[in-house]
Amino acid sequence: MVDLILAGSSSIMLAVDVARRMGLDAIIPVVRKFPDGEIYVRITKAVEDKSVAVIHTLGGNPNDLLIEYLLVVKTLKDLGAKEVIAVIPYLAYARQDARFKEGEAVSARIIAELIESAGTSKVLTIDAHLHRIESIDKLFNIKALNVSAVPELAKYIAKNYSLRNPIVVGPDEESEQWAKVAAKVLNTDYIVLEKKRLGDEEVIIESSVDIVKNRDVVIVDDIISTGGTMVETIHKLKEANAGKILVSCIHPVLSANALNKILLAGAYDIVATDTIQSPVSKVTVSPVIAENLPKL
Amino acid sequence: MVDLILAGSSSIMLAVDVARRMGLDAIIPVVRKFPDGEIYVRITKAVEDKSVAVIHTLGGNPNDLLIEYLLVVKTLKDLGAKEVIAVIPYLAYARQDARFKEGEAVSARIIAELIESAGTSKVLTIDAHLHRIESIDKLFNIKALNVSAVPELAKYIAKNYSLRNPIVVGPDEESEQWAKVAAKVLNTDYIVLEKKRLGDEEVIIESSVDIVKNRDVVIVDDIISTGGTMVETIHKLKEANAGKILVSCIHPVLSANALNKILLAGAYDIVATDTIQSPVSKVTVSPVIAENLPKL
Amino acid sequence: MVDLILAGSSSIMLAVDVARRMGLDAIIPVVRKFPDGEIYVRITKAVEDKSVAVIHTLGGNPNDLLIEYLLVVKTLKDLGAKEVIAVIPYLAYARQDARFKEGEAVSARIIAELIESAGTSKVLTIDAHLHRIESIDKLFNIKALNVSAVPELAKYIAKNYSLRNPIVVGPDEESEQWAKVAAKVLNTDYIVLEKKRLGDEEVIIESSVDIVKNRDVVIVDDIISTGGTMVETIHKLKEANAGKILVSCIHPVLSANALNKILLAGAYDIVATDTIQSPVSKVTVSPVIAENLPKL
Amino acid sequence: MVDLILAGSSSIMLAVDVARRMGLDAIIPVVRKFPDGEIYVRITKAVEDKSVAVIHTLGGNPNDLLIEYLLVVKTLKDLGAKEVIAVIPYLAYARQDARFKEGEAVSARIIAELIESAGTSKVLTIDAHLHRIESIDKLFNIKALNVSAVPELAKYIAKNYSLRNPIVVGPDEESEQWAKVAAKVLNTDYIVLEKKRLGDEEVIIESSVDIVKNRDVVIVDDIISTGGTMVETIHKLKEANAGKILVSCIHPVLSANALNKILLAGAYDIVATDTIQSPVSKVTVSPVIAENLPKL
Repeated sequence: MVDLILAGSSSIMLAVDVARRMGLDAIIPVVRKFPDGEIYVRITKAVEDKSVAVIHTLGGNPNDLLIEYLLVVKTLKDLGAKEVIAVIPYLAYARQDARFKEGEAVSARIIAELIESAGTSKVLTIDAHLHRIESIDKLFNIKALNVSAVPELAKYIAKNYSLRNPIVVGPDEESEQWAKVAAKVLNTDYIVLEKKRLGDEEVIIESSVDIVKNRDVVIVDDIISTGGTMVETIHKLKEANAGKILVSCIHPVLSANALNKILLAGAYDIVATDTIQSPVSKVTVSPVIAENLPKL
Repeated sequence: MVDLILAGSSSIMLAVDVARRMGLDAIIPVVRKFPDGEIYVRITKAVEDKSVAVIHTLGGNPNDLLIEYLLVVKTLKDLGAKEVIAVIPYLAYARQDARFKEGEAVSARIIAELIESAGTSKVLTIDAHLHRIESIDKLFNIKALNVSAVPELAKYIAKNYSLRNPIVVGPDEESEQWAKVAAKVLNTDYIVLEKKRLGDEEVIIESSVDIVKNRDVVIVDDIISTGGTMVETIHKLKEANAGKILVSCIHPVLSANALNKILLAGAYDIVATDTIQSPVSKVTVSPVIAENLPKL
Repeated sequence: MVDLILAGSSSIMLAVDVARRMGLDAIIPVVRKFPDGEIYVRITKAVEDKSVAVIHTLGGNPNDLLIEYLLVVKTLKDLGAKEVIAVIPYLAYARQDARFKEGEAVSARIIAELIESAGTSKVLTIDAHLHRIESIDKLFNIKALNVSAVPELAKYIAKNYSLRNPIVVGPDEESEQWAKVAAKVLNTDYIVLEKKRLGDEEVIIESSVDIVKNRDVVIVDDIISTGGTMVETIHKLKEANAGKILVSCIHPVLSANALNKILLAGAYDIVATDTIQSPVSKVTVSPVIAENLPKL
Repeated sequence: MVDLILAGSSSIMLAVDVARRMGLDAIIPVVRKFPDGEIYVRITKAVEDKSVAVIHTLGGNPNDLLIEYLLVVKTLKDLGAKEVIAVIPYLAYARQDARFKEGEAVSARIIAELIESAGTSKVLTIDAHLHRIESIDKLFNIKALNVSAVPELAKYIAKNYSLRNPIVVGPDEESEQWAKVAAKVLNTDYIVLEKKRLGDEEVIIESSVDIVKNRDVVIVDDIISTGGTMVETIHKLKEANAGKILVSCIHPVLSANALNKILLAGAYDIVATDTIQSPVSKVTVSPVIAENLPKL
């Protein structure tokens, strides 16, 4: 049972909305960044013996946001909170979940430990980027639940875009899980491409995509980071004479002018959720959080 | 016994110099920041059963640097290092060492806990900003040693500036500890002013400073942050017809155009150490670290 | 007659939307920031003899965005564009429109000169912050038009919030122009407070606000920067037992954790436009631009 | 004849030093950055009818620094300064001095125009990165002088490092001009390697370097940016069994953890000048500026 929602500074409007949906009070902490880069946190509401859900994404400036999160949770515990539940719409550092080369920091595990050892009891994530890990339970030693916002994303697309004989495209094998769900909501079929990563950005796509000819396409992925995968996918679809290409994702990380690159490649529009704030965050994950938080 | 020096990215040239002074090998980790703000760390040298001193300041971007530190230490431990010693030339977050207002994060303690729980065995700091805490031992639960670079700073000033009948000035009560040491090295007397803080920047100085008339002045403090204290001190000294005013500190945090403000107020020059890299970091703390690290 | 819309990287989704509304093609330039901070611009579409409207806000990182703008316009002219029209949803540097203290840069005028001398023929701004200047024509030597998005903002509020006996509040004398318009759209009355600025952030509000008792309030201002004015206004309204307080503005500059401060002060919600992208940019100025651009 | 030195905020300590060397007064402007990113400039010293040299590097945050420069110069002219001379230790944006691909901004020329049209009369640069342009005179329409700090750099190396049978290495054809000068100061021979650029960072080096066997090496280049060229050069030299490898450059741009990469590759030490402040800025260009400024 969650008693209070604490609004982390990176998800403040989302947290206020979740609190309203759930009929709970929202704690707005005082958070300042000093000129020397240090973060100041103050919690002005009574939290003793309360179960507090901290809604706080880690996308944008992950290190600043992690330190803010750790300061918040340790202070909540110090002030007597009974339980702290982390709601992390975008879990940063999830990629490096194994030691690919000798000597690497396994940062996914290290960040999970930091979150746990600060005093977090349970964690709720949205479409966490788990490749080699079957389930979020394997990453955290505390109770963890990973839920999907793809149905919300797909419902928004169905309602707001008039698409001609649409087909859903997942840009790589990992995206099949999201493409399948989106296709079901959009009541259509889907295909999944194959990708090879060359260095940090480049990708080569090897599948046949003839099926997209003259059909509008909805590309669905979990994350848009540099946009490289989306650009290659769009080029491939255009070669195959696809119709309008709508690009969608859950997490708009959008580094390195990804929007410019994707639009320049020929996307009709770009749609994402507010797990990270961005100019394309048109779909809120607020109902997904409000529905799943009581299940933890 | 330290076996290896690991050079944190914020203190890399300092660490290489300390390693050379101590006749030890330096580990240079691979450290990258991805476009999405995440930090990648890889340690390519064998560390198993080794005692590793990580030299890594927290001044500049304290949150990025803290996360890098935590990734480095947890990876060292994971790779089998016997012991990790933190050498933190500038310990960020030391100011907030108590709960001044209800609900505040006691960040000095929280950051100390993060450093400890990552697997740090011992810690060496330089002129840590400890106001209400008698000793660095009270902040950390692990073995901790705080040493001073003021003698190095004063020796540099004595050697490189020709000062006329100099006097050392400490801008507030807390600076007496440093003013006294600097005065001894410079073989002269010192005075200490009184300061009242109004808000984040403003200060009022209430002491008489007639003694500085026609004498060159060396102001000594631990930190220059916004420069507000230095500006007020310089104004006060100029009113009392001081000669040349040389401003010095250990930690040049230098936020908010502090250099401009201090020079505009009439400082002759500004001297600091390399606990944080800056345009006035003329004195290295390398010998201070090399001398004290074996004592831990 | 505008032939093409060029999407500046800070307003890219807005520009694409404006182009679609106006039935024009959008130029998406290649814009990259190199690791050393330099900006690279490339325009891959033919612009010779074309009249190009560059939609490019200056809010967020004004200096990066100004340099990008100058690179884009000079390149357009160099490539043979007939005419460049600047659409600047948020005109940064508008505050310093006079020399208040001896020796100050009159930055509003200097920035206007930079925009002009790059080759801009005409300029369209939205609710530019003009205090001492009667009209945007006095700031620019080229043809300039300043239009208001307050009607769009007020219409959004009327449609999306159920307010009980609402009253519009302008936080200071300058906001009367916006409060009046919003009150008309919301079909209600308005009051305007008096403000005194003390330093960079603090304000004192001296007016009587008894009229707000038990009424929901819509505060309307042009800009929310640090949020100081909004916080003081909310405190004043709460003391007078106002109902729900809805905070709105055109330009969500939102520096220094303004959202935290405003919500902590007791705002029910915060609404702004997309002249600057932010978590509260719920209202698009796209129709305002599409309607007024042909008038230039 | 220069009457006054104005210290740009990015070169403030360098400018104060130049002023002292030349026996001139230094103007320290008030420069602040507001929370919204705008820069405030105020010049509190009389400049009417004076010839003012503005010492202001463009390395670090080139766009912020360019805007500061433009605000400073236009204000100086506005306040009646007779002449403004730009001293730009590191001229950013010099790379893009031609249109390599259709539609590119020729940013070197555009930035030069901005500097000129702000009211600059003459310009002094240090080792400007001019590849396709024979002389700085071709880039600027105003009187321009480009001087070299390589002799100072080489003298520092000769004095502070004991090198065994040293040889100077230029990492590519363009570096021959600097390698030749450094070799002369160090009283030894030099070789120049050949480089091919693949993408933004990667380089391949094709020359034979057998001559470096058992000899200490001083690599000399104008700029270290990402460090990619230096890393490849070091690998090549190590394969050829070179002795100690000392890396040196004029402009330490040092993006993307260049220091880590260079030290990890096996450099003994890294030396640069203070045209850009960095942890390796051991050599000041102050005498080079003081000597050449009167020649303009």
